[in-house]
Amino acid sequence: MGKWFDLILIILILLSVVLIMLESVKEIDVKYHRELLFLEWVVTIFFTIEYIARIISIRKPFKYIFSFYGVIDFISTIPLYLSYLFAGSQVLLAFRIFRMLRIFRILKLVKFIGEASQLKQALKASRTKIVVFIYVVLILSVIMGTIMYLIESEEAGFTSIPRSIYWTIVTLTTVGYGDIAPETNLGQFIATIIMVLGYGIIAVPTGIVSAEFAAGQGTAEEKKKDGSISAGTNKHGIHLNTQCCTYCSKEGHRDDAVHCYNCGNLLHE
Amino acid sequence: MGKWFDLILIILILLSVVLIMLESVKEIDVKYHRELLFLEWVVTIFFTIEYIARIISIRKPFKYIFSFYGVIDFISTIPLYLSYLFAGSQVLLAFRIFRMLRIFRILKLVKFIGEASQLKQALKASRTKIVVFIYVVLILSVIMGTIMYLIESEEAGFTSIPRSIYWTIVTLTTVGYGDIAPETNLGQFIATIIMVLGYGIIAVPTGIVSAEFAAGQGTAEEKKKDGSISAGTNKHGIHLNTQCCTYCSKEGHRDDAVHCYNCGNLLHE
Amino acid sequence: MGKWFDLILIILILLSVVLIMLESVKEIDVKYHRELLFLEWVVTIFFTIEYIARIISIRKPFKYIFSFYGVIDFISTIPLYLSYLFAGSQVLLAFRIFRMLRIFRILKLVKFIGEASQLKQALKASRTKIVVFIYVVLILSVIMGTIMYLIESEEAGFTSIPRSIYWTIVTLTTVGYGDIAPETNLGQFIATIIMVLGYGIIAVPTGIVSAEFAAGQGTAEEKKKDGSISAGTNKHGIHLNTQCCTYCSKEGHRDDAVHCYNCGNLLHE
Amino acid sequence: MGKWFDLILIILILLSVVLIMLESVKEIDVKYHRELLFLEWVVTIFFTIEYIARIISIRKPFKYIFSFYGVIDFISTIPLYLSYLFAGSQVLLAFRIFRMLRIFRILKLVKFIGEASQLKQALKASRTKIVVFIYVVLILSVIMGTIMYLIESEEAGFTSIPRSIYWTIVTLTTVGYGDIAPETNLGQFIATIIMVLGYGIIAVPTGIVSAEFAAGQGTAEEKKKDGSISAGTNKHGIHLNTQCCTYCSKEGHRDDAVHCYNCGNLLHE
Repeated sequence: MGKWFDLILIILILLSVVLIMLESVKEIDVKYHRELLFLEWVVTIFFTIEYIARIISIRKPFKYIFSFYGVIDFISTIPLYLSYLFAGSQVLLAFRIFRMLRIFRILKLVKFIGEASQLKQALKASRTKIVVFIYVVLILSVIMGTIMYLIESEEAGFTSIPRSIYWTIVTLTTVGYGDIAPETNLGQFIATIIMVLGYGIIAVPTGIVSAEFAAGQGTAEEKKKDGSISAGTNKHGIHLNTQCCTYCSKEGHRDDAVHCYNCGNLLHE
Repeated sequence: MGKWFDLILIILILLSVVLIMLESVKEIDVKYHRELLFLEWVVTIFFTIEYIARIISIRKPFKYIFSFYGVIDFISTIPLYLSYLFAGSQVLLAFRIFRMLRIFRILKLVKFIGEASQLKQALKASRTKIVVFIYVVLILSVIMGTIMYLIESEEAGFTSIPRSIYWTIVTLTTVGYGDIAPETNLGQFIATIIMVLGYGIIAVPTGIVSAEFAAGQGTAEEKKKDGSISAGTNKHGIHLNTQCCTYCSKEGHRDDAVHCYNCGNLLHE
Repeated sequence: MGKWFDLILIILILLSVVLIMLESVKEIDVKYHRELLFLEWVVTIFFTIEYIARIISIRKPFKYIFSFYGVIDFISTIPLYLSYLFAGSQVLLAFRIFRMLRIFRILKLVKFIGEASQLKQALKASRTKIVVFIYVVLILSVIMGTIMYLIESEEAGFTSIPRSIYWTIVTLTTVGYGDIAPETNLGQFIATIIMVLGYGIIAVPTGIVSAEFAAGQGTAEEKKKDGSISAGTNKHGIHLNTQCCTYCSKEGHRDDAVHCYNCGNLLHE
Repeated sequence: MGKWFDLILIILILLSVVLIMLESVKEIDVKYHRELLFLEWVVTIFFTIEYIARIISIRKPFKYIFSFYGVIDFISTIPLYLSYLFAGSQVLLAFRIFRMLRIFRILKLVKFIGEASQLKQALKASRTKIVVFIYVVLILSVIMGTIMYLIESEEAGFTSIPRSIYWTIVTLTTVGYGDIAPETNLGQFIATIIMVLGYGIIAVPTGIVSAEFAAGQGTAEEKKKDGSISAGTNKHGIHLNTQCCTYCSKEGHRDDAVHCYNCGNLLHE
């Protein structure tokens, strides 16, 4: 049953995201405003019931309410109610998009847990290097942006230092919108240097993460040989659902679990 | 003979693709409509005969007809006939471009089979990681797109959430058309963050594939030492043509083959 | 006390950078010109005092004055005074942005020293390769730019060879502003080749740095096993401040240091 | 003397390239046409003398004349003469830019030979993989371009299939000019897919080259241990100049060489 509940949740979340998108398209909203609003109410009521049910059923509700996913659940459910209570709170309706983050909670427990954690580990290991890298990029952008502000005229779009820095980052990351572009010869020459720099600099984070992944893979293979079990739980094909323990509010129980794996509390009284 | 037939096929396919392209250029189509149509008919009749010959010559024709390449052969041959039968089916003429996929069938058997399969393996091994990666990128795009929709005005091009998400992906992948570009200070600041994110995120798939290739290369070298034969068939310089066995419809026979390598059926009766 | 002094320095530097940025935004400068100028004077006087104090306190002041950071300190402090002395020297005010470089001096001693030096080493090891690479890219750009200048008309923006080279680099680095874009068929065809080249060429520096990082990591791990101490100084959590030795002008003393680690001079007399 | 001659050659080549660039800038050409033409004649006469001297001094002149660098030398020297003989041959003046390629001949013998050859080897080893990769990218571009041509209107710039393919490559390589950009919702959706594809696909060549470099580095280190001499010639600090043997026309002699290293011919009679 836990599995079916998860599937319904995912479908409702995706439906909800599509609804929010369609609402924002004027032509569609004008034509189908009623239908969209009706479906939105269905989804919101479902999530409201789920939210209340979670709070009631667990013994330490505050732990859940102030957890990351608890806050996400709240601010992605409340906006529709608020939009009727307060004028001008329609802006909050966009917060409903955070419902998407709930998919993380559901999916991470099912399928990708191993992969995602390896990815997380690789990023974690190269964290300081990446911070240094971003720091150098930022300093470079500020200095280059200031130089370009001095060289280029306002007509070309370099109206202030912050805007010139914005242009430098657009160039350095090879995005290149073209809304602001250098027009003087000197400006174009320096732009060229920034581009080649950006083109070369991109090698650095890639190199860092590549080396980290290669190292991580080596370690992963060694671990496998050692026969470690820790990360292999869901390789047995056992599904872990999002049901909460009513006592310690831990999630990720097996579908056939009777007691909570954490505190031993009975899951179905 | 199988080799020459393959060569003629490749030339006809390339000719056909060039024809389709030229037809779409108005100035050329107006001037040389007749010549283009004539050549198109030559190519189409050739492919029609080949298609029918294949069906007749093999004993299990349905297996071929509903195979991937069977469907490609059919939908890339039929449009010219349909355009005379039904008004408005000219749009289908573009389907003829799928003829290009046939080159895969011919070339993969000749030259690059080893390389392509190694590439496929590296991609296969890193599949789950790439799925997680694309998933994170998509969620990021939806949330960032919604935020940009709230911040930026409609004049800047952020007219709806789907369009803002489109802009976010354009920025995150460092494509940066510039058809939509942020104009407010806050919008430009968030755009900057998205760019740096995109610039950094690109390191992740590259790192994954690099590590996979490095690992694959190690394995490939070990395999070579073991003296494995499996992937080394066409290293002997033997050409494998696209002729079909009339009994089991397997392709990839040696030019000097008398019997099918799969079922032992006589290839030339 | 050295630690607090560093923190105040960082805050003042960041404040100063924000001030320079805000000054350049016309709307803000018109409104708050007085407040900005006042804060700017506070910051400048602080840096002036620090600069003079440094010169007075060390015994070999010229070594500091003509060192890299000495020059940076001078040219980022003097502009505000000059702007009152000479008309037209307002342009020099932008030099104040070089204050940002001072953060390098402070932070590199505190936190990222190990990481940054590894990064530097990887870049140093692959230096010649990168020079060859940039050289090939430049020659390619000049030749391709000249060809595009011949093919494309002036209306498309290819008004001179330098400008065409600028466009080639914009394309080769995948920035792609779109301020200059080919319009003829031949020009677009060659542009396509340049793009695919640029797309492929980016693999080269990434490959170089990745391999260097992977090799560097291996070495780093071996070093760790050898129990080397050299790079592990600040792993003990000891903070190294930017205070200068008055005798040999070395920086990077422990907060609790009494004598200079280099010459044995008493730090606080 | 060979060394000084090389240095003068490099300076003249760079001067010549700058001259060609300046000539193409209208404002400069109008003002300084005389001076530019005079300098151009100086450079051209120097290269003409060098070209004739080379032909006269070696015994097998035809081998040189039809070699790669022989052809480059010829077509980069002749245009100025032709521009006086034939009306309309001014276009050929741009060929003088090929003089830049001569720097390769000079520099490769001096400094970067080891680096460049390692780079060449890495590219050579991954050649077939890169061919397969480019092939897949091309087929993808043709099919995607055709689909976009069907979906998007002419107003958005998708006027013919070749132009749509051009757009697809602009998008796939993340260049993104923005001169052509999708406007319909479906078009933007498919554009999004192409971008993410391009963003992911870039990982493949990078991965290939990275793995090749990492492998190459391992091999290089092993070679060093074996004490191989082959690639270490110019590590002894011996300069190899571009002087030709008059008998076998081989280049790359030591400055202090008396006999040709290839045929034993006396270099200075």
